[in-house]
Amino acid sequence: MIKLFIADNYNLTESELEAIRSLGYEITLARPNQAPSEVCENHEEMEVALCEHFYLKAHLGEMPNLKMVQMTVAGFDNMGPVIFDTYKNTKFYSGSGTYGVSLAEWTVGKTLEIYRQAARFEGYQKQHKWSWEGSTQTKELWGKTVLVLGTGDVGSACASRYKAFDCKVIGLNTTGRAVPGFDSCCTREQLPEILPECDVICVAIPRTEKTLYLLDEETLSHCKQGAVLVVNSRGRLVDETALCRMLDSGHLLGAALDCFETEPLPEDSPLWEQKNLIIYPHCAGVTMGLRNRYVKRYLENLARYAKGEEPVGLIRYERGY
Amino acid sequence: MIKLFIADNYNLTESELEAIRSLGYEITLARPNQAPSEVCENHEEMEVALCEHFYLKAHLGEMPNLKMVQMTVAGFDNMGPVIFDTYKNTKFYSGSGTYGVSLAEWTVGKTLEIYRQAARFEGYQKQHKWSWEGSTQTKELWGKTVLVLGTGDVGSACASRYKAFDCKVIGLNTTGRAVPGFDSCCTREQLPEILPECDVICVAIPRTEKTLYLLDEETLSHCKQGAVLVVNSRGRLVDETALCRMLDSGHLLGAALDCFETEPLPEDSPLWEQKNLIIYPHCAGVTMGLRNRYVKRYLENLARYAKGEEPVGLIRYERGY
Repeated sequence: MIKLFIADNYNLTESELEAIRSLGYEITLARPNQAPSEVCENHEEMEVALCEHFYLKAHLGEMPNLKMVQMTVAGFDNMGPVIFDTYKNTKFYSGSGTYGVSLAEWTVGKTLEIYRQAARFEGYQKQHKWSWEGSTQTKELWGKTVLVLGTGDVGSACASRYKAFDCKVIGLNTTGRAVPGFDSCCTREQLPEILPECDVICVAIPRTEKTLYLLDEETLSHCKQGAVLVVNSRGRLVDETALCRMLDSGHLLGAALDCFETEPLPEDSPLWEQKNLIIYPHCAGVTMGLRNRYVKRYLENLARYAKGEEPVGLIRYERGY
Repeated sequence: MIKLFIADNYNLTESELEAIRSLGYEITLARPNQAPSEVCENHEEMEVALCEHFYLKAHLGEMPNLKMVQMTVAGFDNMGPVIFDTYKNTKFYSGSGTYGVSLAEWTVGKTLEIYRQAARFEGYQKQHKWSWEGSTQTKELWGKTVLVLGTGDVGSACASRYKAFDCKVIGLNTTGRAVPGFDSCCTREQLPEILPECDVICVAIPRTEKTLYLLDEETLSHCKQGAVLVVNSRGRLVDETALCRMLDSGHLLGAALDCFETEPLPEDSPLWEQKNLIIYPHCAGVTMGLRNRYVKRYLENLARYAKGEEPVGLIRYERGY
């Protein structure tokens, strides 16, 4: 039996745990706030863990013999160095590929809310006011150009949905290589010439050393008048101060952010009150359906590991995700 | 020159008016609140009018020799009898076909707002509260079954967008005939067996004698627990009292209505405060893009009329739309 440690953030059901056992695992369960050493004496013998990188960091060294760690998160970000130093011989697998659907639905939904001025009409409802005021100024996705930064699972899921609204969709990736589902692809070097054509900019790119502040003040300045920005991946890809100035000036029509420079966003952050900004607490990917997808991923990857096959979603630290 | 009367709700630009003149028309322009007899002496000589049915009804008999009336509205509804009696020899053309894009974007947008509990997270933002509470209970469109009542321009535009979110889309029409873009189609007689399977019900059907209160209390009772209702066509297709009871009981997760039993919705209507109900003041179809589409339609139909060709969108009174 393979010794499996689960720091259960996911409320796995008894039948799901049974399915894992039947793959050849002996399970030790911890609540998210319990250290491995609080739950069992043989924590050093654990071979596989289902947990997040921050759980490992909090209890660094308590499970030194892990060979495989399956996470739900898609990005490793700045949690990397200390964990990779400690776990030199451990393979980490992300939940990458399970977030596309939920993030894309959120992204398109928020674009439509901004375009159709949902907040204005909610205000009318609260005032019991039957009014068309402003309606003729609302926008449609039809015929618009959408730039999606990132052409992976999330970016592609966004692209296919925007396409159904008759948008032209341009993807951005490292090499500008063509990706199915995008009308064309470009590199970051092309941003100054491409941004002026884009009505919607969707940020669905991992944060790595290379992408940090990809949308800095200078790059943002190339945005089309009235453009909309939606960020569903990570903070510190967009210069928040420049973004707020552009929302204030009306250069940007609106923005929706799920990720921020500092998380959790402090209660006294001015962002909460920023005009034309929708704030989401980094759970745009969290839905009932997400749970189904990562439980499926757990089972698939644990089955592969047990059979000696390579699981899905290996994190390559040198690449950054 | 053909004598054309325009009751200008649409702020046609000088270049658009010039384009109409160049088709062979002599234009008389009125503001929406001006009667034809206030604007010109030869109102009885008008041959073509760009105006809505309610404008004609308000000034009944002032332009008795109209051969063609081009409206923007898509539905003739109960305005019909008195106008058709007066204008027996006049052909009326609707704006049908220009609303699909804007209504479908609104419809999918509102479904996503309800599924992702947009109002909850807006509340968090207002309170400067960083919280995931409730997020794991939010729903995705992915894999859901959507029933679209009506398989015309609007219903089809809704269908293609829901399909991009990986929904199964069932259409309802008079005969149950297959329509491209729908996975299958059914008739109203099949509603009791089909409704229990449907996660989202979208009402995009004209209101006629036959469709009046299509979703009455009995029919609504067949809805699946947790279903969502979105109405983008006309009021008096859904029993509002039964709907509110089902929203209160939680049988329905939420609803968005653009059209109501009584319009404008009275300030003291309890609907304004109804739990889980989004109210829109019958302008879900009104966008900047809509204007472009109906101006294009005007020009196309006026060109056809001038050349003796049949314009697009003839209203067939016996059919009801």
